[in-house]
Amino acid sequence: MTLPNLDFTHDPAAQSWVASANAEGCDFPLQNLPYGRFRRAGHNEDWRIGVAIGDQILDLRRAAERGRWETPLQVLLQPLAQGDLNALMAAPKAARVALRQALFRALQAGSPQQALLADALLAQHEAELALPCRIGDYTDFYTGIHHATTVGKLFRPDNPLLPNYKWVPIGYHGRASSIGISGQQLHRPWGQLKAPDADAPVFAPAKRLDYELELGLFVGPGNALGEPIPMAQADEHLFGLCLLNDWSARDVQAWEYQPLGPFLAKNFGSTISPWVVTMEALAPFRCAQQRPEGDPPPLPYLDSEANRSLGGLDLELEVWLQTAAMRAAGEPATRLMRSNFRHAYWTLAQMLVHHASNGCNLQPGDLLGTGTQSGPAADEGGSLLELSQGGKQALTLPNGETRSFLQDGDTVILRAHAQAGGARRIGFGDCAATLLAARAG
Amino acid sequence: MTLPNLDFTHDPAAQSWVASANAEGCDFPLQNLPYGRFRRAGHNEDWRIGVAIGDQILDLRRAAERGRWETPLQVLLQPLAQGDLNALMAAPKAARVALRQALFRALQAGSPQQALLADALLAQHEAELALPCRIGDYTDFYTGIHHATTVGKLFRPDNPLLPNYKWVPIGYHGRASSIGISGQQLHRPWGQLKAPDADAPVFAPAKRLDYELELGLFVGPGNALGEPIPMAQADEHLFGLCLLNDWSARDVQAWEYQPLGPFLAKNFGSTISPWVVTMEALAPFRCAQQRPEGDPPPLPYLDSEANRSLGGLDLELEVWLQTAAMRAAGEPATRLMRSNFRHAYWTLAQMLVHHASNGCNLQPGDLLGTGTQSGPAADEGGSLLELSQGGKQALTLPNGETRSFLQDGDTVILRAHAQAGGARRIGFGDCAATLLAARAG
Repeated sequence: MTLPNLDFTHDPAAQSWVASANAEGCDFPLQNLPYGRFRRAGHNEDWRIGVAIGDQILDLRRAAERGRWETPLQVLLQPLAQGDLNALMAAPKAARVALRQALFRALQAGSPQQALLADALLAQHEAELALPCRIGDYTDFYTGIHHATTVGKLFRPDNPLLPNYKWVPIGYHGRASSIGISGQQLHRPWGQLKAPDADAPVFAPAKRLDYELELGLFVGPGNALGEPIPMAQADEHLFGLCLLNDWSARDVQAWEYQPLGPFLAKNFGSTISPWVVTMEALAPFRCAQQRPEGDPPPLPYLDSEANRSLGGLDLELEVWLQTAAMRAAGEPATRLMRSNFRHAYWTLAQMLVHHASNGCNLQPGDLLGTGTQSGPAADEGGSLLELSQGGKQALTLPNGETRSFLQDGDTVILRAHAQAGGARRIGFGDCAATLLAARAG
Repeated sequence: MTLPNLDFTHDPAAQSWVASANAEGCDFPLQNLPYGRFRRAGHNEDWRIGVAIGDQILDLRRAAERGRWETPLQVLLQPLAQGDLNALMAAPKAARVALRQALFRALQAGSPQQALLADALLAQHEAELALPCRIGDYTDFYTGIHHATTVGKLFRPDNPLLPNYKWVPIGYHGRASSIGISGQQLHRPWGQLKAPDADAPVFAPAKRLDYELELGLFVGPGNALGEPIPMAQADEHLFGLCLLNDWSARDVQAWEYQPLGPFLAKNFGSTISPWVVTMEALAPFRCAQQRPEGDPPPLPYLDSEANRSLGGLDLELEVWLQTAAMRAAGEPATRLMRSNFRHAYWTLAQMLVHHASNGCNLQPGDLLGTGTQSGPAADEGGSLLELSQGGKQALTLPNGETRSFLQDGDTVILRAHAQAGGARRIGFGDCAATLLAARAG
């Protein structure tokens, strides 16, 4: 099997003149080059687009002014210098690849651009980060078959997976306005809760507060209303990925979700990681789609040879937890689980193509969540609902605390990295957020 | 019962110097003054905000330049002159009322502004209309209890209304990008369809294409993330209403909607009417919330004296149909049904307050659909699904054609007007759109 689109930017031996990028285990080596939106912390200045490199950020406004770039790249850098990542998302994949290659060359050890760009760097610890782009619409899918099965079992022991699951990449619309960036603090939401034996619901702070481990796909150019995207063109429209914590209030969800789906149980906040890791950076980690023997093949509009052989992505995912007590004692976060995105039943291309298959228009910067990514084993659940078996079996943490669901003060950290086949390790940085107590009623 | 906020702009005897506004049955009399976004048809110029008056549009850019306005109103008119209605939506209700009163005075017969504003008018038939504002997020509610009951009966004859219906203003997120404006043409979507007795679904053009008769509420200032809106402040955040056709593919919906709700069955397009009728214009038609004797009272966070006595809205709603054959024969559209928004089980204030009750942030220009507004009688269904009893009983049209669901070439027209208690009749204008054949596969 030959991977497509591998070029010099995937050379694992390449080093950067930004020394921290060459460190073992660094999330942001020269081969990554993810995009984010930042400004100097404590300065009320315009947001800019930057590229993470080691522990630094290459400021693309300064880079555009000081570096040497061919004319087409200058044009591409113009909106980025103004803080507009959506414009790059709207550009053809070939243009995105050209910019990546130019940035790689510019940051590579020995580049003649080093002298020009050295003061276009800002240390990440001096930066404040924002949402990387305008997210017009946010859709959440349900591609984690092990999550769907485990959660389904809690409600329907004999029939955990619904009949449509292996045919339809199930998805639903989410709330764009309440998507926030890593580092945020969220209040435990109030909601209608109804105990199974109660006559009436009460309005109270949610008790069964949970996270969900997801990836978020940022859409590239997208499609006009009424014009579906065929599988053969899907790659053109896959811009890049972030981590996504789809906070969920399980008790609110159980009472409200029939018949139209989750609503207030989910839209009080969703947290994403600040750096958009491009599909180009992840190319070495593409893998065959996993579809168990005997399962129906995808309908033709969701099928392609390229998707079968390379639609998957070998990406390690992790959830870490730091409670308030751990923080107070100076103890680090503890890992709750790990899984891998290669277990997803539907690929990124299938999510995108299905979404547009009825003519629904996708726009640059739209976010598609993958749904919770649980592994096949019981300790690989991507939510506490799964790890605690619906709240019946509390987890014991290293310091002796227990958790069935989240407690006030808990910080949830999602992490991801790709490491396979001799390629340079690519990381995502943290997606961290802290649950605060509910507001007074 | 005294209606709040009635002032001279509700005087039914007031006349405009724009003569067409004084005609009997006119949708846009002086007492209405709805906002829309327009430009001269056939001119590739900037979009502007205008106010419909009779068969004319008052161009607020020209009006800002030529009219005489006090300083606070000049400030308010500035973004409108630039085509930005969201800025007015973000303004406090008191400012919105002040602008309405000033526009009313300026357009009233005998106004000294007549000479200044006479050439700030454009005939509506010379204008092209666009979406009135940026719609950040779109949410659809389910407040039509007769719709919920009738549709529920089709699926669950013994238990049509789910247990949460009378406690939770059920809602779910919709797709903002595919909202279009009256006059649009939409292709019949493709989707996965599965016959009950088939082993597998097929991907084909939807057969059971339907409309839904809804109102859309535009949100005013809104709330910050984490800060709910109490009932006592709801009015401040209700900007105005439009008509909303929530096109639905019933066969796609039936197969895809479990367990996370409707998705591709709905997001191929939604059509709204171009003029936003403000809550101030509709004040004379507010009425008591209808809640049948014996039903549980709303939980306290959804209850208020003002909502009980004035949360409802007496607004006549209609659906009209013109088939391709009728159009070819020069026959006008035929009315399929009428109902009234006063039958809604939940009020606009309750929709808004429930949405923000978990801290979800609502933003100026967000659109909240009311759900399908059916009346209590069988011939008052707000969709063909209801009128045709799930497709089993076709309607016969005046020209002998029949319809269980929509056919290619059908134009669906939603209309609404308020007329009660001696107040001047207020109309919404048409929300019309035409279904085209599916694209070739």
